[in-house]
Amino acid sequence: MNFNYPNGKRYIPNVTETQTKAKKPSNPSYSNRGMTLEDDLNETNEYYRQRKIAVIHKKPTPVQIVKVDYPKRSAAVIKEAYFKQASTTDYNGVYKGKYIDFEAKETANITSFPLKNFHQHQIEHMKEVVSQGGICFVILRFSKQEQVYLLLAQHLLNFWDRMKNGGRNSITKDEIEQLGTFIPLGFQPRIDYIKIIDTLFHF
Amino acid sequence: MNFNYPNGKRYIPNVTETQTKAKKPSNPSYSNRGMTLEDDLNETNEYYRQRKIAVIHKKPTPVQIVKVDYPKRSAAVIKEAYFKQASTTDYNGVYKGKYIDFEAKETANITSFPLKNFHQHQIEHMKEVVSQGGICFVILRFSKQEQVYLLLAQHLLNFWDRMKNGGRNSITKDEIEQLGTFIPLGFQPRIDYIKIIDTLFHF
Repeated sequence: MNFNYPNGKRYIPNVTETQTKAKKPSNPSYSNRGMTLEDDLNETNEYYRQRKIAVIHKKPTPVQIVKVDYPKRSAAVIKEAYFKQASTTDYNGVYKGKYIDFEAKETANITSFPLKNFHQHQIEHMKEVVSQGGICFVILRFSKQEQVYLLLAQHLLNFWDRMKNGGRNSITKDEIEQLGTFIPLGFQPRIDYIKIIDTLFHF
Repeated sequence: MNFNYPNGKRYIPNVTETQTKAKKPSNPSYSNRGMTLEDDLNETNEYYRQRKIAVIHKKPTPVQIVKVDYPKRSAAVIKEAYFKQASTTDYNGVYKGKYIDFEAKETANITSFPLKNFHQHQIEHMKEVVSQGGICFVILRFSKQEQVYLLLAQHLLNFWDRMKNGGRNSITKDEIEQLGTFIPLGFQPRIDYIKIIDTLFHF
């Protein structure tokens, strides 16, 4: 979405996908593997927002800013910064007054979803949201099969505990099929997770 | 809060306040004027979180990343980036299952609060949250008098419309005293806005 800021601030164009791809880092969490899933979710959220179905946004990428230049008569330039690990999940917002909170991850695995896709801070955050009565879940994508599932945080937390207690460090595909809900890919919206929330919570 | 990330990622220390102050930009929205209010709110949110009263976080500062270096065997370094205007408010989260959303601003004015502290995207976002049944408000601080008020978004939106229809481009202190709620500054938590929400909504 291109626009000019009303306050006269310089418009900074988006990084093109080519640039992003050309500079793909080795760390998978910053790679473009998640690009499609993130794009689909951003489009879905925009669909919800425009039709007044829900107001859900992706949070900005947390960045630790170390050095900033302030050239006269132009925008401040960040000259040194680092990616920080997020202390919460990536997406949150409101649906019919209720708090919605989720994280989206994908795997190239076929038969299981590795728990290393999540980190301790996110798990703690999900626990807090659940105990505060928020609607919290993960959207899991099996990229090879192009299958997307919604799994409530309660289940993910159980699998996390199983791992912490010496159990397997992944969720089997069978478990996800049994406890999660398959989200058929659509055209508009691409990943209609609110429909699943409706069926699970009967709003 | 200092911690080591469990995944072995390099720990990036926070920018010290000295650095921030030394490089204070001329644009007031990036200056350290808001530091105290933001600090107080972050402390308040941490207080709520630790006592399981509410889970509310400040969103990361939105940054448009243009150039990233990926040195071998060390963390990715952002070499060029710009501050972006936020498309939403700064704070959101969950309280007793309800969606909470707010923006915090301060002024050195004595008798009115200038509306230029908000921008069109934030106003649009607040409208959307209100129509989705979320609890949306602004926390307004008069820095000279050290007075903090909570004003529901509904009222702010009316004052915004008044300005758009040719009226004054600020809210008078009288109007804020009449329609908003004074938040007495405390020790812990510093700015107990959840108490005000309780009295306004009778949860």
